[in-house]
Amino acid sequence: LNIALLPGDGIGPDVVVQAVKSLQAVAEAFGHSFQFEEAVVGAAAIDKTGDPLPDETLEVCKKSDAVLFGAIGDPKYDNDPKAKVRPEQGLLKLRKSLGLFTNIRPIKAFPTLIDKSPLKKDIISGTDFTIYRELTGGIYFGEKKLSEDGTVASDLSEYSEAEIERIAHLAFKAARSRRKKLTLVDKANVLETSRLWRRVVTSIGKSYPDVELDFLFVDNAAMQIILNPSQFDVILTENMFGDIISDEGSVIGGSIGLLASASVGTDNAMFEPIHGSYPQAKGKDIANPVASILSAAMLLEHFNLKEEAEAVKFAVERSLERGVVTPDLDKDSKYGTNKVGDYIADFIL
Amino acid sequence: LNIALLPGDGIGPDVVVQAVKSLQAVAEAFGHSFQFEEAVVGAAAIDKTGDPLPDETLEVCKKSDAVLFGAIGDPKYDNDPKAKVRPEQGLLKLRKSLGLFTNIRPIKAFPTLIDKSPLKKDIISGTDFTIYRELTGGIYFGEKKLSEDGTVASDLSEYSEAEIERIAHLAFKAARSRRKKLTLVDKANVLETSRLWRRVVTSIGKSYPDVELDFLFVDNAAMQIILNPSQFDVILTENMFGDIISDEGSVIGGSIGLLASASVGTDNAMFEPIHGSYPQAKGKDIANPVASILSAAMLLEHFNLKEEAEAVKFAVERSLERGVVTPDLDKDSKYGTNKVGDYIADFIL
Ligand SMILES: CC(C)[C@H](C(=O)O)[C@@H](O)C(=O)O
Ligand SMILES: CC(C)[C@H](C(=O)O)[C@@H](O)C(=O)O
Repeated sequence: LNIALLPGDGIGPDVVVQAVKSLQAVAEAFGHSFQFEEAVVGAAAIDKTGDPLPDETLEVCKKSDAVLFGAIGDPKYDNDPKAKVRPEQGLLKLRKSLGLFTNIRPIKAFPTLIDKSPLKKDIISGTDFTIYRELTGGIYFGEKKLSEDGTVASDLSEYSEAEIERIAHLAFKAARSRRKKLTLVDKANVLETSRLWRRVVTSIGKSYPDVELDFLFVDNAAMQIILNPSQFDVILTENMFGDIISDEGSVIGGSIGLLASASVGTDNAMFEPIHGSYPQAKGKDIANPVASILSAAMLLEHFNLKEEAEAVKFAVERSLERGVVTPDLDKDSKYGTNKVGDYIADFIL
Repeated sequence: LNIALLPGDGIGPDVVVQAVKSLQAVAEAFGHSFQFEEAVVGAAAIDKTGDPLPDETLEVCKKSDAVLFGAIGDPKYDNDPKAKVRPEQGLLKLRKSLGLFTNIRPIKAFPTLIDKSPLKKDIISGTDFTIYRELTGGIYFGEKKLSEDGTVASDLSEYSEAEIERIAHLAFKAARSRRKKLTLVDKANVLETSRLWRRVVTSIGKSYPDVELDFLFVDNAAMQIILNPSQFDVILTENMFGDIISDEGSVIGGSIGLLASASVGTDNAMFEPIHGSYPQAKGKDIANPVASILSAAMLLEHFNLKEEAEAVKFAVERSLERGVVTPDLDKDSKYGTNKVGDYIADFIL
């Protein structure tokens, strides 16, 4: 496998290097050979080249089998409404250029960490769902306008049948291999795009008669995810709603430092932690590397290397059980990013 | 005061009548005179007139000092992507026609109900914030399109400086009278409209130097509201984001049946529970009337009838403390909608 490494900003580089350790351990233990090629993205790339996604980086990704991504974002760009170049543009362009139209986020409570959740135990027990978020359409990529005098701004949200169909098939297939329930989250009582989603998904659902399909308005979904998260199996939704509810869902498990995601398309796939770049923690050896390591496990699964993926997940679980964790999970911990990464990689070997 | 009553759909009529009882008790106890005029809206209005907001209803509202609204929505319209008329259109048109550009939602944990929250006690303790949601702009009211062949749909989100300014002033003033913190929730790393929001709100903030202003991306806000809700004082946000995060926030207190909201403009104001129309419970004497009664209290506050509003809130708190509550709060309760409404009204007298 050729794997492109895009560490990005903030703690991105700190954690990606730990994921690489685990992948190297897997290669050694299972007799594989993984090639890694690193490239810049985000604020790091702007600083170096003026472009958040330099052509070279895109080339590295395109010729790779998969991309391992760190994190993106730097506060110096956030509060400057006039910034012409933003780190996030690099990520959005990367998703679009690689055709990564589906973002997959598993949400599950880790039994060892159940006490860390802001939710009560009886609320989260049994929670195990996956969000399928459309990733290359909607308001993120629609036309953006600012009037000449700067007093009126607009963003267009647009969806075509074809864009909805391809992700809907993936989501139905996922539901079929799980508990056979698919929930479409939309705002069909207000938005035209949501009504199109509802129509297309309903019609595709006819080819998956074994999957139960239901609908939830996004405002209600935002409540249900907290009130009764175990009701969900697979959630399917558009880009913006998916951004919001998947981050909301990420709090259920008690540590966002543990959650991984996959972004897949027809020809490529990218794996990344869901956490941000936490610039405050950059280079301090305190960032939790587990989400990045579990992203590597998702990468292995994606290529059907199931045993290998299990070995990584097993090693992560042992580290959690044995308290070999970064300070975000145990403030008295003596382990840093590196030590935790080493422990997990050694365990795989 | 002339008060228009718009009971609407589902349990709307069941609860509005209880709020009226409390207002009548206030009138009697404090020597006021309130005139009520009832009108149809939503699915109820479609059934009767074909229009979810008949002109007559709008007239009744326009000549009133304030509107007391019940709930809107009927499932028979939700799953029909081709429905030409929808109950929600009535509500949206009403907001627009009355110029109700600000929706205000207080979120506070009721001490008596703290155990009902899905969140842990230490997470919710101290929570007391208010969401200012823009209510007549953004993607709700932007141009909606469906291509001739029905394969491409779009919704436009648009904001002008003026639309942002008027609600921003209200939010800053609210923060000034509270803990002096305002958080703008947006997605300025992706959306042009959000960047306009950030620019306008930052500039208005200069006139409120005593209020601390900060910014949160909506995905992060969706996490923070659950992880650490007591950090917030006043949250300001656009229409769609406000819809989602205010419903999310409503779970903190443990019962959505208790939460009220105000929608205010320059010339009119409307008060309504945040819960929906729950058609399954319609007419069964089980709906919780408290949110509607507390909406009436917000109405009184709006007209500076502070003592009167306190009397209503006090009566509600006593009913909660003494267990005079509907079955949603205590499944063994012998009290229905009516009994709870009577108890609260009697207590005011
Ligand atoms: C950084 C940002 C553009 C991005 C998004 O909103 O898609 C992030 O929040 C995510 O969810 O991956
Ligand atoms: C019924 C619907 C159109 C409405 C909205 O989304 O504004 C409701 O959810 C609300 O929040 O008042």
